Amino acid sequence: MNILCAVSYDGSCFSGWQIQPDKTTVQSVIEEALRLMSGSRIRTTVAGRTDAGVHALKNYFNFKVEELLIPVDRLPVVLNTMLPDGVRILSAENVDETFSSRYSCRKRIYEYIIVNGEKTPFLCKYRMFFKRQFNIELMDYSIKKLIGKYDFSGFKSIDCNSKNQIREIYYAAVHQKNDEIIIRIEANGFLKNMIRIIVGTLLDIERGKKKPEIIDEIIETRNRGIAGKTVSPNGLFFVDAIFER
Amino acid sequence: MNILCAVSYDGSCFSGWQIQPDKTTVQSVIEEALRLMSGSRIRTTVAGRTDAGVHALKNYFNFKVEELLIPVDRLPVVLNTMLPDGVRILSAENVDETFSSRYSCRKRIYEYIIVNGEKTPFLCKYRMFFKRQFNIELMDYSIKKLIGKYDFSGFKSIDCNSKNQIREIYYAAVHQKNDEIIIRIEANGFLKNMIRIIVGTLLDIERGKKKPEIIDEIIETRNRGIAGKTVSPNGLFFVDAIFER
Repeated sequence: MNILCAVSYDGSCFSGWQIQPDKTTVQSVIEEALRLMSGSRIRTTVAGRTDAGVHALKNYFNFKVEELLIPVDRLPVVLNTMLPDGVRILSAENVDETFSSRYSCRKRIYEYIIVNGEKTPFLCKYRMFFKRQFNIELMDYSIKKLIGKYDFSGFKSIDCNSKNQIREIYYAAVHQKNDEIIIRIEANGFLKNMIRIIVGTLLDIERGKKKPEIIDEIIETRNRGIAGKTVSPNGLFFVDAIFER
Repeated sequence: MNILCAVSYDGSCFSGWQIQPDKTTVQSVIEEALRLMSGSRIRTTVAGRTDAGVHALKNYFNFKVEELLIPVDRLPVVLNTMLPDGVRILSAENVDETFSSRYSCRKRIYEYIIVNGEKTPFLCKYRMFFKRQFNIELMDYSIKKLIGKYDFSGFKSIDCNSKNQIREIYYAAVHQKNDEIIIRIEANGFLKNMIRIIVGTLLDIERGKKKPEIIDEIIETRNRGIAGKTVSPNGLFFVDAIFER
């Protein structure tokens, strides 16, 4: 059996998705719950390998088991009783044996949220705060230059170990809703820290430190050095994923 | 000079208000910021000595200094740059030398918020979750029995060290707003864990485990043993305080 689960988590409670020694990660608590339930070691594959501090409204993982002793639709309730508060399984379903949350994923959707106002204690782990008159049109114009299939090496962390740096961005937009500025990007995949570097670059453009054309230049030259800084993970959410099924 | 500050904090970031050895408390980070600013040790007095995990929308503390080298209205901005994200100074003002956040406080207002629905990861530190058909009228009827001046020993933690257990509750109500049940209590003061034990007792009454008259009995007998359990601090907020000035 191949089981696909949707999962939501508060990234501030975990050192990212991926299992690491001596750290509490989303994968480690989920695989521990699966081990408690099944009595054996079960490995998960995820759609979005989010970094430390990055949140998920709806991420997806799958795992294979010989048999499931409970009905698949009861799996969220059972796993949630064994999981810490910061993570909740939203749904579970049986999928084709060939399905992989990673390789069957066609689109990954992220949003970065900036509050245009004073920092408030209850939102500080879930937003970036920046109080200024934002030029949303300029940010939206600039981010749209990223749409297309490119080598995005200029927007990756120096410790990114992807072999292939080519990704395709299908949609990118910046809009304001009340006091929140929402930066949304949909792509077939992302390099390490790619969105956080894009947001850092957009903020530099918005405040006049860089021209919008810097985006084209970063893509062309693949020079990380001319892009903006990597912003905090606090405002970043894995929103959803679309699969080929 | 006697300075009064309003402060908001996310209780999940701290081991309560009060300074304790080897723990990060709201008082410890604020007094450290004051020490950095002034160069000397400054002691604060607070209106609501909240326990670990309890939040504050608007709590108040005051402190005395010989002189302030910056205008008092700039104090929030200066202190906030030195404080961790989970706490924000909202305002600062000069008050009379005799004013005390503790002893001049006439009314302390708390709210406990229960979400009548599924647990969600982003709210788990800020709400209690309980999915059932709530009888709000019964809860409101029961909590109103607490209004008045009584010895509330039956509603205090066994490690409460207040010498005087008499408090006056001016207002108490339970109402539902969308999927949230809000329990609000206004009093001249509270004993340790008093609100959390009141909420635990209300929940027992609501689910039929106890009769509403248990409230009168707990007040009369001062027997902590017949009251409900102490619920989680996660849903509890210090909302505001009213002072005699």
